[in-house]
Amino acid sequence: MKIGIIGLGRMGANIARRLMRDGHECVVFDKSAEAVMELKRDGASGAADPHAMITALTAPRAVWVMLPSGKITEDMIGTLANAMEPGDIIIDGGNTFYKDDIRRAASLKDKGIHYVDVGTSGGIWGIDRGYCMMIGGESYIVEHLNPIFKTLAPGVGTIEHTPNRSSHDQRAEQGYIHAGPVGAGHFVKMVHNGIEYGLMQAYAEGFDILRNKASTDLPEPQRYNLNLSDISEVWRRGSVISSWLLDLTASALAKDETLTDFTGYVEDSGEGRWTIEAAIEEAVPAEVLTASLFTRFRSRQKHTFGEKMLSAMRQGFGGHLEQGHTPVKKGG
Amino acid sequence: MKIGIIGLGRMGANIARRLMRDGHECVVFDKSAEAVMELKRDGASGAADPHAMITALTAPRAVWVMLPSGKITEDMIGTLANAMEPGDIIIDGGNTFYKDDIRRAASLKDKGIHYVDVGTSGGIWGIDRGYCMMIGGESYIVEHLNPIFKTLAPGVGTIEHTPNRSSHDQRAEQGYIHAGPVGAGHFVKMVHNGIEYGLMQAYAEGFDILRNKASTDLPEPQRYNLNLSDISEVWRRGSVISSWLLDLTASALAKDETLTDFTGYVEDSGEGRWTIEAAIEEAVPAEVLTASLFTRFRSRQKHTFGEKMLSAMRQGFGGHLEQGHTPVKKGG
Amino acid sequence: MKIGIIGLGRMGANIARRLMRDGHECVVFDKSAEAVMELKRDGASGAADPHAMITALTAPRAVWVMLPSGKITEDMIGTLANAMEPGDIIIDGGNTFYKDDIRRAASLKDKGIHYVDVGTSGGIWGIDRGYCMMIGGESYIVEHLNPIFKTLAPGVGTIEHTPNRSSHDQRAEQGYIHAGPVGAGHFVKMVHNGIEYGLMQAYAEGFDILRNKASTDLPEPQRYNLNLSDISEVWRRGSVISSWLLDLTASALAKDETLTDFTGYVEDSGEGRWTIEAAIEEAVPAEVLTASLFTRFRSRQKHTFGEKMLSAMRQGFGGHLEQGHTPVKKGG
Amino acid sequence: MKIGIIGLGRMGANIARRLMRDGHECVVFDKSAEAVMELKRDGASGAADPHAMITALTAPRAVWVMLPSGKITEDMIGTLANAMEPGDIIIDGGNTFYKDDIRRAASLKDKGIHYVDVGTSGGIWGIDRGYCMMIGGESYIVEHLNPIFKTLAPGVGTIEHTPNRSSHDQRAEQGYIHAGPVGAGHFVKMVHNGIEYGLMQAYAEGFDILRNKASTDLPEPQRYNLNLSDISEVWRRGSVISSWLLDLTASALAKDETLTDFTGYVEDSGEGRWTIEAAIEEAVPAEVLTASLFTRFRSRQKHTFGEKMLSAMRQGFGGHLEQGHTPVKKGG
Repeated sequence: MKIGIIGLGRMGANIARRLMRDGHECVVFDKSAEAVMELKRDGASGAADPHAMITALTAPRAVWVMLPSGKITEDMIGTLANAMEPGDIIIDGGNTFYKDDIRRAASLKDKGIHYVDVGTSGGIWGIDRGYCMMIGGESYIVEHLNPIFKTLAPGVGTIEHTPNRSSHDQRAEQGYIHAGPVGAGHFVKMVHNGIEYGLMQAYAEGFDILRNKASTDLPEPQRYNLNLSDISEVWRRGSVISSWLLDLTASALAKDETLTDFTGYVEDSGEGRWTIEAAIEEAVPAEVLTASLFTRFRSRQKHTFGEKMLSAMRQGFGGHLEQGHTPVKKGG
Repeated sequence: MKIGIIGLGRMGANIARRLMRDGHECVVFDKSAEAVMELKRDGASGAADPHAMITALTAPRAVWVMLPSGKITEDMIGTLANAMEPGDIIIDGGNTFYKDDIRRAASLKDKGIHYVDVGTSGGIWGIDRGYCMMIGGESYIVEHLNPIFKTLAPGVGTIEHTPNRSSHDQRAEQGYIHAGPVGAGHFVKMVHNGIEYGLMQAYAEGFDILRNKASTDLPEPQRYNLNLSDISEVWRRGSVISSWLLDLTASALAKDETLTDFTGYVEDSGEGRWTIEAAIEEAVPAEVLTASLFTRFRSRQKHTFGEKMLSAMRQGFGGHLEQGHTPVKKGG
Repeated sequence: MKIGIIGLGRMGANIARRLMRDGHECVVFDKSAEAVMELKRDGASGAADPHAMITALTAPRAVWVMLPSGKITEDMIGTLANAMEPGDIIIDGGNTFYKDDIRRAASLKDKGIHYVDVGTSGGIWGIDRGYCMMIGGESYIVEHLNPIFKTLAPGVGTIEHTPNRSSHDQRAEQGYIHAGPVGAGHFVKMVHNGIEYGLMQAYAEGFDILRNKASTDLPEPQRYNLNLSDISEVWRRGSVISSWLLDLTASALAKDETLTDFTGYVEDSGEGRWTIEAAIEEAVPAEVLTASLFTRFRSRQKHTFGEKMLSAMRQGFGGHLEQGHTPVKKGG
Repeated sequence: MKIGIIGLGRMGANIARRLMRDGHECVVFDKSAEAVMELKRDGASGAADPHAMITALTAPRAVWVMLPSGKITEDMIGTLANAMEPGDIIIDGGNTFYKDDIRRAASLKDKGIHYVDVGTSGGIWGIDRGYCMMIGGESYIVEHLNPIFKTLAPGVGTIEHTPNRSSHDQRAEQGYIHAGPVGAGHFVKMVHNGIEYGLMQAYAEGFDILRNKASTDLPEPQRYNLNLSDISEVWRRGSVISSWLLDLTASALAKDETLTDFTGYVEDSGEGRWTIEAAIEEAVPAEVLTASLFTRFRSRQKHTFGEKMLSAMRQGFGGHLEQGHTPVKKGG
């Protein structure tokens, strides 16, 4: 089918390419003319601006917005809404907060415009592996867009079937689900990212313990100089903790077991934070997901003010000023 | 090659079977005569007791002990050591604490007996998938036992190669590594289990947040009745958080999305605890692995004494006694 | 000075009493006529409704609202605003979310009405000990209300002076501060409560460890039957961890060392949750405050869904169903 | 009574002084002759070595060892034991691990020598405030030493009586307890320090949240420039979270609200670590105490290896290298 795509960053451009490979027609727009030009070389029609895109599409129009979440996406949806007609569809494929989806959909409903939120996982590998998609919106609209989702999804591939799933929604096996009403797609994707933080942190702590087992602070016979690259590789094979994140870890460690190219300064995105807020709203204890987020906060500071307070209190009752020399410690 | 196997529980018996399938000869012993009988039907030689096993093997003898860690294993190794000759080899394939390995190996060395520790992952699936093994011990002894490890390991199979590994130890790709001197195998396996706890807890918290999104405590438009089975299935396909543990989760949820058969009373084993102790010895912060362990501790109590203390303090400054009615909450 | 007080629960009624003891005139209202009657016996003027209260006060009127946070407070402030004149003052002494303060103050400003937020700590002991107050609002309005705050505050009392404070705001030594513009009072009180959760949890965990040292799961010579009442008492005297919360703990344990009257079901209030949200907004790692909140969430459930997931995964790779019998464990 | 004191660091010297002020006779030894000389000026008898001290005391001799825990204390106790006679008493007032107490006492028992462990809190303030003591050992020996403990303890002082304590051990009100058999004193002191870490961290996180409320990353109307010194002072007065640690915090902040003299590099001692190990042995969840310990571990590193692993994984699925520039953040 014919679809408009706005935002030709790594994700948006590859989504367009995967769609075109499977025979869909894409009208694309990006504020960078160069990005549009590149996609045109790959077979897309270029639009000079959102209005031109609306004109180039036929009703009911479907436009996939793939922009950074927040004000940029918000403004673009406003622009589209003004240009669109009742029955048209806006798909937000970015990382929008699900409460913003709910608010927007309610406002677009007044104009007869449909809103679909798609949480998309797969990163830079999606163009070939396909995108895992979690979709929120009205059922018949999601149904209408099915050809798009089917193309973008990984498909069954070589992944083994889960037993007892024959009576379940078969789209999940293809790699996409209709999670629920508007916002549900981004909500599920948000929790996905929260889990992602937790998994990453579990591996990170484990490898940190392995690496520091060589520390000269330990008694000699209990010191091991472990080969982290070999360990990550062997765990990929038959162990309980094999995973795609472990595959990526093994790749990184095979290249350089010391990871010296990495500063250890770790960003976090909205989804990780919103997941904790959701846990708090629901009164669900979520120690691990929260600790994973806080580790990232901590990684971006030299010292917290809180740590200085600890030193100040220690001086208060112990009478000495802490030295603050950095110990010789493997890791950084 | 010919090998003795002591302990024919699920793990030990299947290890023997996988070895025999590949042409190795197994002499087996278990305190249950029935267990020995069953293995004999599968082609093993049975031994009436450890001494008979020693007699049935030829020097240098190798005996794989696959018993519950602690006193049972300790005693059996003592018995074997008394019956063995210099040059013989004891393999502890159980879940022994690595500091016990170091202590034992030192004591066996005086008698000229070699000690090899093997951490084994793979659970009940290992007989077919193969066992992921982390091995500690002297290099030439590990080399001598290589035929055994090669058979037990999963082999390369269909798992993709990790780039840049051509110069690394090729055994890792087969699913086993020589991690280092005595104890290193169990140490690496111990951290493996620590990570396992963390990964499991990350998924558990995420699904808990998904499930409680249906809570009637939330404002109506922000409530979703999410299909956890479909979500676990879709995440297996192209998402960043796909893993074997997620595969198992999807299987469980496909059978029963409410998990009513499970009490939520969760055991922990030594490895999870020892991992935290190792982190503390190394001064490595390990929030996530620790929180995962503590969740299990908490899951086995109705209320902690600490929680009662919180209530007592609240009464102290707030003046009211907390009710303690269990709220209507999805989950249990 | 003359002041209106709305809401005669434990806090509101005692605030009125403490004010009247020091010569202030109070006009009081509560939806319970009985509560009003009781305060009239103590010397207050009663008002039949908010409008009658406004009439009974003289411009610039000051009304202290001491109601449960949320809709009840919100509605009352709306009612007052409609009846008041420019220059009048509304004081919210409850546990309002500081962002709500900011929103309300902006809306009241259009009508020329001033808004002051007062975070109040002291619980049921405040009538005698005085109330510790954190105040947000315009400086000259806070100055105007100073007689009220001075009376309610504990005063210097017998608490030792902090060195080097001579150049600082002297109100802090009296037990009240003007924390900043509107919302700052409730923000500081919110963090106060967040810290309170953390302190309580630290004591709770420590005493839990002391109590379970008698567990028969421990090897005999390492088992102690510790007297928690004596321990809490001795720590009040010269130890680094003496505090008012410890005083309350000692009182509770002196009455009943087993705390059998307490269920261990622990409530949480908005402030604890908002503190974590503030930490997340500021990217400040706050492990301890968060863990304290999550412990309370957990205390109110029999089992989490997450725990059942752990059991399900364990069955997936280990092949056995966990028993779920409750172990004999001191604590509950 | 007459007592020997070995180790004249800040704690040991002040303990000797407090004892002599109250009429006890002290024979002192330290490897520093200067330290001995100083105490002699204050009225003590000096001993040239432990043997000379034993000679100078009369049976049953009592020697208080106040040395760094570990090998130094262990060796000194060995030296004393060799020189002592049956019936003599060794008091370990340092920070010994309670399992070492148990082991030592068993070995000394063979020689008829008694062993008493005393956990001591009070820091540099103890000489004037008195020392809070937790004592382990045989009842009649602890009784025999009562005059020493009574002198060192703070006494009832101005601290309010806890209701319902009349039937309890009155020593607790004086500031010392006989906690139980050997090791119990150090065990209770160990948990005391674990709690101390938790309390400190709760305050530290709270003040960090207060301080970062001025961050320019926050939307303007929600930014407050809070006066941390005033806040710490006001919380000392009538609030639920008043404590001695808060008093010390207020002192530090009154001197310098930015704490620029402190590096934020925070040491930890054995007790904090052993507390977590005790929690794990008892299967008691202790999130807060553990997180407090891990914060200190983290404070001493520039970046953990774990954080680099997070960056490596992020690059693996996201395709970009994290920048690692340090953000402009209040705190360090």
